[in-house]
Amino acid sequence: MAEYWNEPASRALRADGLRIADLDTSARPGFRGDKPMGKRLLTERGRVLAGEQEKLYANGRSGDRRSVLLVLQGMDTAGKGGIVRHVIGSVDPQGVDHAAFGVPTEEEKQHHFLWRIRRALPRGGQLGVFDRSHYEDVLVARVHGLVPEEVWQGRYAEINRFEQELADNGTTLVKVALFVSLDEQKARLRQRLQRPDKYWKFSPGDIDERGYWPAYQEAYQAILDRTGTDYAPWYVVPADAKWYARLAVTELLIEALRGLELNWPAPTFDPAAELRRLERA
Amino acid sequence: MAEYWNEPASRALRADGLRIADLDTSARPGFRGDKPMGKRLLTERGRVLAGEQEKLYANGRSGDRRSVLLVLQGMDTAGKGGIVRHVIGSVDPQGVDHAAFGVPTEEEKQHHFLWRIRRALPRGGQLGVFDRSHYEDVLVARVHGLVPEEVWQGRYAEINRFEQELADNGTTLVKVALFVSLDEQKARLRQRLQRPDKYWKFSPGDIDERGYWPAYQEAYQAILDRTGTDYAPWYVVPADAKWYARLAVTELLIEALRGLELNWPAPTFDPAAELRRLERA
Repeated sequence: MAEYWNEPASRALRADGLRIADLDTSARPGFRGDKPMGKRLLTERGRVLAGEQEKLYANGRSGDRRSVLLVLQGMDTAGKGGIVRHVIGSVDPQGVDHAAFGVPTEEEKQHHFLWRIRRALPRGGQLGVFDRSHYEDVLVARVHGLVPEEVWQGRYAEINRFEQELADNGTTLVKVALFVSLDEQKARLRQRLQRPDKYWKFSPGDIDERGYWPAYQEAYQAILDRTGTDYAPWYVVPADAKWYARLAVTELLIEALRGLELNWPAPTFDPAAELRRLERA
Repeated sequence: MAEYWNEPASRALRADGLRIADLDTSARPGFRGDKPMGKRLLTERGRVLAGEQEKLYANGRSGDRRSVLLVLQGMDTAGKGGIVRHVIGSVDPQGVDHAAFGVPTEEEKQHHFLWRIRRALPRGGQLGVFDRSHYEDVLVARVHGLVPEEVWQGRYAEINRFEQELADNGTTLVKVALFVSLDEQKARLRQRLQRPDKYWKFSPGDIDERGYWPAYQEAYQAILDRTGTDYAPWYVVPADAKWYARLAVTELLIEALRGLELNWPAPTFDPAAELRRLERA
């Protein structure tokens, strides 16, 4: 880390007090390397992440109920899928609990908005990944008025209580908001419309949503202001450069895992005695 | 494929008529390359697998309900976890539905043995992975007499009906049984007992199970003989060489995916019209 970062990613990217309107989505906070260096580090640090994650998994198998939960938010094309593929893709799939939250199903709509979220929480020892999350219920729901204002207004406090409970129960939350510029989004949507192997990622609604950009910026600002807490801080990641966003999230996860100060679990058996028994078996 | 394989892996490894007693667990059926070549191919073919899986995922997102389900069976240390890590680890985690089946929970025990299996089936477009499966109910359950003989005897037909139903509903089953020799297993258990970072993978019961080796061989022979079907064949993978087993499973999955003859989904919109709309948005 030390050589290429001016400070830990968790400090460089922490959102406290940040104004989204002032954000440079092409910036690379904290990182002093260039793109080739960033891409090389991504492979190298992916291996480090996999090593840390294996320790979490090993402890989980030994009864440790702690977990790490990456919450990914961002506008269409901000790169959530790429983070899952390239960052989470570097760790053992056995240790990953991945959930993507789309438009709620009929069943989900009949429950409290946190119902489907609770059902998808990572087990102990797992690295959970939420591709979108309960924050959709104060983002799209707010922007499009899917529920009355008094309902979504009340959700910020509900979310904070929920996340406090998770933190108290041993889940380290890593909440990441990815931001691209309106121009960068246009370029990425254009690519999806120009390549037959990318059509499936596009939906005409993605263009309509661009008309709500300022309302989304406001809704994102509100989640940073109202749900950025000590026990579950927000990290804002400028994401015009995909390699930077992926590297930054890799570092955030490494830091979160190292913060648990995990060791390999102690054996619950006598290795020397078992070795002797094995030789006879 | 053609250059390094004498025949497709699905033909070289198909279990029909195979006697486990005659199996050379250090063999490399169908493959004519050496270890360095095998390891290099593993990376290269992992990329091919990821490309095929992405097409399955894309079609799933577009409403195609087909899926591929890898069923992994094998004795302790046979390398199931390594397959998940290194083979499944090469594809996008978003497209993977992974489930590991251990000793049934109290709730699971109160249900039919296929209950927990059905709950974990892959969604359309997903690559499902079962690390152990319903076959435990005719392996460990048979070897240790966990249920009366008439119960486990009846399960073979139940399993065949279940798998026929899956196949009819668009799930391509890739059933893989990994086999290592008793000596190779000893070496792998020894390693787990000599490295503190591997202790967590060891359980004293693993040594006890070695005493049941012949009974397990018999139980495995029975599943090959009684549940190897046209719609859900078994593949037997000699697994003393980890690189070979991983490469072989990679090829089996590539062949299964290619068998679906997937194309990129056709757009449900007019790309040219959307492009014009995008430029104005």
